[in-house]
Amino acid sequence: MKRIAVLTGGGDAPGMNAAVRAVTRSAIFKGIEVVGIRRGYEGLLEGDMIPLTKSSVGGIIHRGGTILRTARSERFRRPEGINEALQQLRRFDVDGLVIVGGDGSFRGGWELSQGGFPVVGVPATIDNDIAGTDMTVGFDTAINTALEAVKKIRDTASSHDRLFIIEVMGREAGFLALEVAVASGAESVLVPERAVDLGRLCDKLRYARKRGKTHSLIILAEGVMAAHELAGQLMDTGGYDSRITVLGHLQRGGSPTAFDAVLASRMGAAALEGLVTGRKRVMAVYRHGGMELAPLSLAWEQKKSLNPELLDLVEKLSI
Amino acid sequence: MKRIAVLTGGGDAPGMNAAVRAVTRSAIFKGIEVVGIRRGYEGLLEGDMIPLTKSSVGGIIHRGGTILRTARSERFRRPEGINEALQQLRRFDVDGLVIVGGDGSFRGGWELSQGGFPVVGVPATIDNDIAGTDMTVGFDTAINTALEAVKKIRDTASSHDRLFIIEVMGREAGFLALEVAVASGAESVLVPERAVDLGRLCDKLRYARKRGKTHSLIILAEGVMAAHELAGQLMDTGGYDSRITVLGHLQRGGSPTAFDAVLASRMGAAALEGLVTGRKRVMAVYRHGGMELAPLSLAWEQKKSLNPELLDLVEKLSI
Amino acid sequence: MKRIAVLTGGGDAPGMNAAVRAVTRSAIFKGIEVVGIRRGYEGLLEGDMIPLTKSSVGGIIHRGGTILRTARSERFRRPEGINEALQQLRRFDVDGLVIVGGDGSFRGGWELSQGGFPVVGVPATIDNDIAGTDMTVGFDTAINTALEAVKKIRDTASSHDRLFIIEVMGREAGFLALEVAVASGAESVLVPERAVDLGRLCDKLRYARKRGKTHSLIILAEGVMAAHELAGQLMDTGGYDSRITVLGHLQRGGSPTAFDAVLASRMGAAALEGLVTGRKRVMAVYRHGGMELAPLSLAWEQKKSLNPELLDLVEKLSI
Amino acid sequence: MKRIAVLTGGGDAPGMNAAVRAVTRSAIFKGIEVVGIRRGYEGLLEGDMIPLTKSSVGGIIHRGGTILRTARSERFRRPEGINEALQQLRRFDVDGLVIVGGDGSFRGGWELSQGGFPVVGVPATIDNDIAGTDMTVGFDTAINTALEAVKKIRDTASSHDRLFIIEVMGREAGFLALEVAVASGAESVLVPERAVDLGRLCDKLRYARKRGKTHSLIILAEGVMAAHELAGQLMDTGGYDSRITVLGHLQRGGSPTAFDAVLASRMGAAALEGLVTGRKRVMAVYRHGGMELAPLSLAWEQKKSLNPELLDLVEKLSI
Repeated sequence: MKRIAVLTGGGDAPGMNAAVRAVTRSAIFKGIEVVGIRRGYEGLLEGDMIPLTKSSVGGIIHRGGTILRTARSERFRRPEGINEALQQLRRFDVDGLVIVGGDGSFRGGWELSQGGFPVVGVPATIDNDIAGTDMTVGFDTAINTALEAVKKIRDTASSHDRLFIIEVMGREAGFLALEVAVASGAESVLVPERAVDLGRLCDKLRYARKRGKTHSLIILAEGVMAAHELAGQLMDTGGYDSRITVLGHLQRGGSPTAFDAVLASRMGAAALEGLVTGRKRVMAVYRHGGMELAPLSLAWEQKKSLNPELLDLVEKLSI
Repeated sequence: MKRIAVLTGGGDAPGMNAAVRAVTRSAIFKGIEVVGIRRGYEGLLEGDMIPLTKSSVGGIIHRGGTILRTARSERFRRPEGINEALQQLRRFDVDGLVIVGGDGSFRGGWELSQGGFPVVGVPATIDNDIAGTDMTVGFDTAINTALEAVKKIRDTASSHDRLFIIEVMGREAGFLALEVAVASGAESVLVPERAVDLGRLCDKLRYARKRGKTHSLIILAEGVMAAHELAGQLMDTGGYDSRITVLGHLQRGGSPTAFDAVLASRMGAAALEGLVTGRKRVMAVYRHGGMELAPLSLAWEQKKSLNPELLDLVEKLSI
Repeated sequence: MKRIAVLTGGGDAPGMNAAVRAVTRSAIFKGIEVVGIRRGYEGLLEGDMIPLTKSSVGGIIHRGGTILRTARSERFRRPEGINEALQQLRRFDVDGLVIVGGDGSFRGGWELSQGGFPVVGVPATIDNDIAGTDMTVGFDTAINTALEAVKKIRDTASSHDRLFIIEVMGREAGFLALEVAVASGAESVLVPERAVDLGRLCDKLRYARKRGKTHSLIILAEGVMAAHELAGQLMDTGGYDSRITVLGHLQRGGSPTAFDAVLASRMGAAALEGLVTGRKRVMAVYRHGGMELAPLSLAWEQKKSLNPELLDLVEKLSI
Repeated sequence: MKRIAVLTGGGDAPGMNAAVRAVTRSAIFKGIEVVGIRRGYEGLLEGDMIPLTKSSVGGIIHRGGTILRTARSERFRRPEGINEALQQLRRFDVDGLVIVGGDGSFRGGWELSQGGFPVVGVPATIDNDIAGTDMTVGFDTAINTALEAVKKIRDTASSHDRLFIIEVMGREAGFLALEVAVASGAESVLVPERAVDLGRLCDKLRYARKRGKTHSLIILAEGVMAAHELAGQLMDTGGYDSRITVLGHLQRGGSPTAFDAVLASRMGAAALEGLVTGRKRVMAVYRHGGMELAPLSLAWEQKKSLNPELLDLVEKLSI
């Protein structure tokens, strides 16, 4: 391998830049050149590439977002998209590709690699919903960002004796909501993986009030329902007045935590190692504290499940 | 004076606890006892008071919210509310009252003091909309909290080449929005004090795109309109697609910044000094860097105006 | 079991309060009473115990330090210390003990349990130097605290084109130094587990300058040598002028990160479960992402080793 | 004026980049070109200048340190230094200069302007020791950075019942130490402006212990003495065992607070306005909440004094 490319795709996640840096420097360390593809598959199709050097990735390890930017690409999804993309990669003499992103981006990489083109993934998404890896790049930062917000809201909740519903990201998966709920000591958590039991939720609120707990926090994953809907249902079912906060996009940004900066660095280096040693259609994964390579297809073929221990903890520790 | 009381009213603001600590310790320093009234005027009417000692206000200077809690009180607004409140103050042998809160709480204090009962205020609100003081307790913290959120959102905005509308608190006043806009380098700011010129806003966005600026941030005070309304108008008027984030209650919470911890400490001490020296119906104010006492009535009789220099800066520095 | 006790020992670590909360609420959830022993073994000998209730551990999950306090105890180390401690536990009708602390505290617990008294540990130390568990409570927070400090110092280092030595905690172990080095993108790391090769360090600095890198950061674990000594040696050996910062005690404090709040909650609950199910002389450990119970004696009988992958990463990624 | 230059000098301070951005964009807004001088006066002598454009100062408002870097220059202090510097300014067709820095840098600017060359200053130093302005760029950030560190140390101090001495920056001035002491609720503060009264300090510690306060924090400005010296004196005089932490360089770095980002933006714009309107040897200053221009020479001719109100507050509120 003489030259590889790296792109970031899907929603941005803290640590993507640390991964780009790690891929780039690991490659240069081995004498391989690196180009960065801007704006994901859209930029790939347009040939929007820039050389990445030792120093062009200096000082980016702590920056949120992605310096390569990211975009959705309708063009890439057309039947001829794959061939055009492969042509651009050849035009730039690229021998392999590292994709930093989530399952959508990995599927794109899978298509690209059908004919044998080497593709390796670095799982990066704040949702942590990629099977095969215990943690994705950006997840730890998002938990901490949401936790900081929840702590601030608890100040107001307890000062005003109020019930708050805090909506966090997570369309399909409740990983973020669950970790935030345990970490914040929230009274309840609602996740897409479990059916909502409104009666039980109201019982819990009633019991909490009875024993003098004058404020409560409910962490709600956006995939369950919108916060204002839940507020409506709580009012209708139990007469509970609540305030809502939708954390929204601020959960995506920010400087990566130490864990994410380290994870992204390790995954970026492992992905490059995978490319160099001829591994194809794999992604760097974090399993039991170590780095491994796992089939890219796990990202969409397997479903990762919530840890029931944590669901129990929310109940047990918020009595 | 042998014993005074302190209460926190209205919306909670970071630094309220630092103010309570300062009132309490300044009083004890002079040999005066202190009781804390819980849940604002509602708690006053119920006689919900606790003794405050040197050590009961230890360790609270950095805590967000208010340990005394706060509440709205319909009962206090009834004609007989004032008399009942005065009776409770007499019952607890209270000779003077410090009110930590905003203009609503100050009006309540004004009513209480009609017959001569000594009342002094500490202006505390994240909105900074109290005339007579350059800064209110909690404002600096709220600006920094909102700024941190905006910085995170900018990561995503620039990674995805997007236009974001960020709605911050401020029903009547744009102080918070304006400071956040300047501090974050936002492209535009909309405040209740100025009419919205949608055509000009679209011109600005068009011009920015033309010169290659692919992302933009608009800071919107909630009093202007809801973020989703502005998003609709931008789409209808100029075809601009935008994302929105409503920061909401997290702007109220959190540990006070150094400025707010110091301001609250100074104001709390100054308010106590005011009480002791026989000043009535005044509030501690921060003017030109120093502590003064100003008429409580300024809080609702005067309107504080935005600094036009800052409005100009947003335009000039986001070119 | 009708009543258990919990104590925090050794150096304080962020998340100790979250562990105390989890032990307490898990116990109460099962109908078991809880007493908190203040000031570690010293307080145990003095019978300095307080009842812990649902609400007395409310609002402590995010507080740094330990509300139970901690202390060194010479008395406990005397031959008669163990018996006196057991007498106090009997006097307070305590049927089991949870120790939140490091290896020194665990050894104390081991002695206490010689005659069969049930003792379970929660490993909590910012050093992460306890074998048997992948992570200890407080480690993740300490890494992030140190990382934040290093990021600030990098601002000055790069503005002034300077070489900085940053001394972090770690007398016997380099876990903290190593994670901080990878996460911060530091140029070099010195840990107690590896001999210092000053010649190689100087070569690296020389090479970095040659290729235009005008500033460098060296992360130094305190157990290797003092920062000012290393500064002296760099000057003597290679003529390198450096600035030093010793992070010191600020690494111990602060609100726990989400990871530590969750880990402490899980470990506290697991420790209580261990006690209730009759396990003795074990500690709650985090292995491969899950909770287990492992022999307490691992804490001093085994030595945990640094991950060589991370040592390589520091070299490879700081080229 | 057709082209101006901007440099950053002296120790770096958070907000310097925001000031460079404001100078640059204000100038471009008026149709004036801008060059950035790298590494302060040293770079000026070497002609190390780069063009600054709208977009080259994009995204720097929140970055700590200075993108222009800074350096000490022996060459500039030689008799011929001034003339060589003026030649370089002419060579690059520069009509005016904005200096972002402290009193040392301002003296350099004063020399440069002896023959009439237009020079305007933006006071930026974390020490706040420049007369004529209520606040300097970087001071508010440094207070908050130090406060965060002190809060963490208090966790350990209170957990271990210890006395801590925390050394903060401030060789000549105690502004930083004093604000940190009030904001953190520290028990004592030692500043260069006041003689140390060790007997009184020990009395205070004794009294605090007597009434049950088991931990204490002393904030020490580095200009008074080194922390380990004070620790020695406390041991010798009163037998007090203490721990020390020297905050060091981390106080200089970090992203500017909202206040500093706004102050730097306002000062940068005001400095440019001063240059354009023909003002010479002035600096932008913050007086009573507004922007003004004041003689540059105030920076070294006047001494700014500490606010005695704050010194009293430390005593009164830490009882």
